Amino acid sequence: MTSVDTRAVVDLLGALAYAELTAFDRLAEDARLAPTLAGRAALARMAAAEIGHHDRLAQRLTELGTEPATAMAPFTAALDAFHEQTRPGNWLEGLVKAYVGDGLATDFYREVAAFLPDPDRDLVLEVLADTGHAEFAVREVRAAIAADRTVAGRLSLWARRLVGEAITQSQAVIAEHDQLALLLTAGTGNLAGVARLIERLTAAHTERMRVLGLRG
Amino acid sequence: MTSVDTRAVVDLLGALAYAELTAFDRLAEDARLAPTLAGRAALARMAAAEIGHHDRLAQRLTELGTEPATAMAPFTAALDAFHEQTRPGNWLEGLVKAYVGDGLATDFYREVAAFLPDPDRDLVLEVLADTGHAEFAVREVRAAIAADRTVAGRLSLWARRLVGEAITQSQAVIAEHDQLALLLTAGTGNLAGVARLIERLTAAHTERMRVLGLRG
Repeated sequence: MTSVDTRAVVDLLGALAYAELTAFDRLAEDARLAPTLAGRAALARMAAAEIGHHDRLAQRLTELGTEPATAMAPFTAALDAFHEQTRPGNWLEGLVKAYVGDGLATDFYREVAAFLPDPDRDLVLEVLADTGHAEFAVREVRAAIAADRTVAGRLSLWARRLVGEAITQSQAVIAEHDQLALLLTAGTGNLAGVARLIERLTAAHTERMRVLGLRG
Repeated sequence: MTSVDTRAVVDLLGALAYAELTAFDRLAEDARLAPTLAGRAALARMAAAEIGHHDRLAQRLTELGTEPATAMAPFTAALDAFHEQTRPGNWLEGLVKAYVGDGLATDFYREVAAFLPDPDRDLVLEVLADTGHAEFAVREVRAAIAADRTVAGRLSLWARRLVGEAITQSQAVIAEHDQLALLLTAGTGNLAGVARLIERLTAAHTERMRVLGLRG
């Protein structure tokens, strides 16, 4: 493995730290849409786990000599825009967004983490560990579709909109961050490697849609 | 100490469990009003701590043979009404609400906890432990007043409105829960004891207003 520029590590940890902070926000907001108190507590608990992850990343950034706020700043606009464009209108849209959107983001970060030196690789893999959200979302969405088949069509459209918006914002971020772009190309070997990475992400996404009972 | 009716314990733990869940919501909402990313992460961290407390209470309710959702249900309307009537319009109002409102609620729960048998007394005292919010709120509010003296007047009015609304909702809850009313009267000895409890709560509230630099 070629040595990795510290700026790329700081960029990646900064992006992920802000992603965890927005994940907290979003789960906290979705918690209020929960149809039951138990569902609301479950989502609040997942939000709390994201803040634990955020803190780990912020601590590591401080160790690397960077203010967490400074490392996060370049990524706030794109992540805020993504969430602004994909604000769930109800409980099920929130769960699909969490499962499909976070699943895609997690896969992407996990692929990039493989190119990082330790301890940052392990840290990223650790904070990406599922907080129990996936299983919860799958159960609720499948139950809703079983109760009303028309739900599947509406949620499939919603999921496609999420992915489109995620691709738009990711491209904008990578285009503006040369170090991240270099990390991706160097890590995968070349542009063909990047193409294979995208294929892997797409395959995993299609599988998640199938598990939810949605059309990709 | 006279023996305490289990229904009163369940009522108190249920009210507190829902209060922690709404505290999570409110801190998560206030986090979004933070003027800095560091302030936002700080509030999100405090919200996460409240969910830890909620989980402890929910676990104890389950041990006592009561569904947490069932124990919380009688208190959702009053607590939701309180938060609906006192939605902060900005970052400073949110901090004053957290410091003054939570301070008052914490003092009240702490007084009532003294009447409970163990392990519930210790559990309540433990979940009431300050999550670092108080010191943070005092620092931010005092700094804002130092920068602009007119802020003190507006926030003093806001604090008075909070207390008025808190008294209205508490009276409604106690009026509808005989076991809680009995616990209060039996615990303090008699109505004169209740009056002294209210005096202690008022004195502590006046002190908090002074610390913030507000007029009670």
